[in-house]
Amino acid sequence: MAKRPVIAFTMGDPAGVGPEVCLKAAREARVLRCCLPLIVGDLGVLRAHARRMRLPGGLRAVPGGDVPPPPSGPSGPVSVLDLANVPARQRVFGEVRAALGRAAGEYVERAVALVREGRAAAIATAPLSKEALQAGGYPYPGHTEMLARLLGVKRPVMMLARGRFRVAHLSTHLPLRKALRLVRRERILYVIRLFAEALEVLDGRPPRLAVAGLNPHAGEGGLFGREEIEEIAPAIRSARGEGREVAGPEPPDTVFAKLRGGLFDGVVAMYHDQGHIAGKLMCFRFDAQGRSAVRGVNVTLGLPIVRTSVEHGTAFEIAGRGRADPSSMADAAVLAARMVRGREVIPEAGRKPGGAKPSARSR
Amino acid sequence: MAKRPVIAFTMGDPAGVGPEVCLKAAREARVLRCCLPLIVGDLGVLRAHARRMRLPGGLRAVPGGDVPPPPSGPSGPVSVLDLANVPARQRVFGEVRAALGRAAGEYVERAVALVREGRAAAIATAPLSKEALQAGGYPYPGHTEMLARLLGVKRPVMMLARGRFRVAHLSTHLPLRKALRLVRRERILYVIRLFAEALEVLDGRPPRLAVAGLNPHAGEGGLFGREEIEEIAPAIRSARGEGREVAGPEPPDTVFAKLRGGLFDGVVAMYHDQGHIAGKLMCFRFDAQGRSAVRGVNVTLGLPIVRTSVEHGTAFEIAGRGRADPSSMADAAVLAARMVRGREVIPEAGRKPGGAKPSARSR
Repeated sequence: MAKRPVIAFTMGDPAGVGPEVCLKAAREARVLRCCLPLIVGDLGVLRAHARRMRLPGGLRAVPGGDVPPPPSGPSGPVSVLDLANVPARQRVFGEVRAALGRAAGEYVERAVALVREGRAAAIATAPLSKEALQAGGYPYPGHTEMLARLLGVKRPVMMLARGRFRVAHLSTHLPLRKALRLVRRERILYVIRLFAEALEVLDGRPPRLAVAGLNPHAGEGGLFGREEIEEIAPAIRSARGEGREVAGPEPPDTVFAKLRGGLFDGVVAMYHDQGHIAGKLMCFRFDAQGRSAVRGVNVTLGLPIVRTSVEHGTAFEIAGRGRADPSSMADAAVLAARMVRGREVIPEAGRKPGGAKPSARSR
Repeated sequence: MAKRPVIAFTMGDPAGVGPEVCLKAAREARVLRCCLPLIVGDLGVLRAHARRMRLPGGLRAVPGGDVPPPPSGPSGPVSVLDLANVPARQRVFGEVRAALGRAAGEYVERAVALVREGRAAAIATAPLSKEALQAGGYPYPGHTEMLARLLGVKRPVMMLARGRFRVAHLSTHLPLRKALRLVRRERILYVIRLFAEALEVLDGRPPRLAVAGLNPHAGEGGLFGREEIEEIAPAIRSARGEGREVAGPEPPDTVFAKLRGGLFDGVVAMYHDQGHIAGKLMCFRFDAQGRSAVRGVNVTLGLPIVRTSVEHGTAFEIAGRGRADPSSMADAAVLAARMVRGREVIPEAGRKPGGAKPSARSR
């Protein structure tokens, strides 16, 4: 077996399903085949979960100085880097608490430090509560923005991935009205480049991308809007000039069905929901009682480190019951490992947007 | 068997797949079980298709005065109201021609007249080419707008339906920038009412609706936009005040996965692509060669007549080869028949938006 990279799992909000999905995913065979999971969290919280779930193998605290932790195995204990930051009186489920938001933020900071120190290869994050995070003193709307700040990156790009269904977004958490103003050729080209390089790392060959239009029917030749003509098509032409295979502007309503059918390797979406409506239909399964099963991974492109994340939230309403589905967390770990391996094969990929001027992260 | 309503199939653009899908759908058992198809088109064009496809049973021209045509059956001929408006020299495939656009427009006009005269109960339209239609002297971006004009309706509402996955749209063919300006409480309430009544006709009980937000995460409490607070939530409150079951504003990225899971009977989408991205993922299947299979129906609400349509376009590239899939046309016919039957049971439904002031169509 090739040397497995250490993936730092951040435990997420202790009151949510994060600890549970980390523990379960860290024991899945498909995860252990490709990486060494190291949960960055609170050992007391994790122990309580492990006991409740009767997790075989137990937990093992890895001292802060160990590089890397000894291999985990299907029958061996799960490795934990214990930040010991959740006192017993804070062990609750389903509540927004400042102390827990602060703890969740600390897991992320520590995991980033591990990667920077070369002690982990990538991070896979379990869900945190934005409200708790902010109450805990981290003024960010979410992981992505926090990581961008920690790593000095101005323009992180959000990619959703489920299997070969991959979507990169021009913008994320903005009013739609404001997101429209970001549909500019320079930004589109930036996302095309980052996305193409990420997919080349994953697939081992240059991807066939499509860029969605912004307006119905991709503007219908200017009749339903001019962004396709003035911004999107010029960006596509520039990307083609760099030798990339890029289709579009594609009608937004059919491009995702085409992606699912295998006509493309990835789609660039012009705003959050354009990509997320399609992505969540691919990743989420609700039943008539409102229970959901989630697959798929959220990836932040444009960071100097590999970071993947679950596709779901803290699910406070089911926290602590042992019912949380770890599939998305396991997907996140597996994808992180694949990205790490791909980067080793293509060392330049993912380090800078190819052909770009000084990249966003160096500004 | 209950009396089957006559559904007028408009043949669509003679150079596209319309004639083929009309003929095939008119012979499907599930269509014949619920309605009497009458193709409004050109007998010469249809005969040529029937010969090429070796359609059993042949065609029968129904004189203009017949009310209604004698029943068609699985082994009997398909009934055609022949407008004889495609001369032999115009029998081409895959070309935009003014004469053919004019012919397609005439089928729609005649079908509407049939319904108004009580000789057909509803119309189900095969695809036409917008370019050809306009070249042929009909200055409309599509069927919906043409029907609205023919019937004196100001605000037709587009519904997509595949089985119990139903979405109604606040606006259709507009630049996204302009569509945002139509996210207004009065308009949302108008669509909720029309949609609720259409679904009650179909399902035989008041529906559980959801209204999507406009912004990511439905605005996240005003952080990512204020339309949810200022326009959408007030419309939902008004609808609830009328006794309707309406959830929302729901995060746009998960509401369609919830709809698929059966948590709602229908979703009101704030703009064309919000609903269409989800709808086309439900209706279209592409393979890696770009071939598509299409299910589902496009329905125009707010008209004084029942009108359904295929979910696909003219597919010029495969016209005349006998390969077109009639599933969507058959779905359109079946849904039209169900709507006609539902209206008979609930006579007031679909005639005016309940509780509304003088409706759009009377203005």
